[in-house]
Amino acid sequence: MAALLLVAHGSRRVSSNNEIRILAEKVREHDAGRRYEDVRCAFLELAEPSIPDGIEECIQAGASSVKVLPYFLSAGRHVIEDIPREVEGKQREHPEVRIELVPYLGLAESMPELLLAMAG
Amino acid sequence: MAALLLVAHGSRRVSSNNEIRILAEKVREHDAGRRYEDVRCAFLELAEPSIPDGIEECIQAGASSVKVLPYFLSAGRHVIEDIPREVEGKQREHPEVRIELVPYLGLAESMPELLLAMAG
Repeated sequence: MAALLLVAHGSRRVSSNNEIRILAEKVREHDAGRRYEDVRCAFLELAEPSIPDGIEECIQAGASSVKVLPYFLSAGRHVIEDIPREVEGKQREHPEVRIELVPYLGLAESMPELLLAMAG
Repeated sequence: MAALLLVAHGSRRVSSNNEIRILAEKVREHDAGRRYEDVRCAFLELAEPSIPDGIEECIQAGASSVKVLPYFLSAGRHVIEDIPREVEGKQREHPEVRIELVPYLGLAESMPELLLAMAG
């Protein structure tokens, strides 16, 4: 079973964290081919679940592979160091599960088209 | 003449700011229909040009309308208060130019599909 974990920074504002939870729900709904039987979110800080807890939730729900997608726009310390460290720690705990960190949002090749569409 | 101004937060890391400058270039290249004769970027803080200076650059280059697109993922204080305030100030200075703040990136309707494409 494949799971997708959307990882956001986390905010003191509950509404921002809820935006991420709603986005994860929308990703699940848009996954028409059901490539991911489970789509969840996790937060680097300031909100729950943490990244290790989010990965653990996926595994406990039966995931044999977990893709971790950083919902970040630039390659700062969080993307370069913090998130990989948390993913690696969890991978060591669960060698039987394939935990894969995929590129962060800011690297999306279709970002220019998306921005043009938003500008209208 | 229509201009598009991509507004990012700005970072102490030069490479992050350059990512935004490269992205603005890519947006310009992808605008096949040339809806925007000018595509630039500006930064809320920590990098140049500032938002007012970025809008001014567009106007000095001949823009009669400027769309300002916040390259932000969530509706925090920057998106809700700071960016609108800077745009409004510049609008008062240039009533002859239509300066329009468009929705921030995080509101993109196609975000779920984009995330699924990135996850692969």
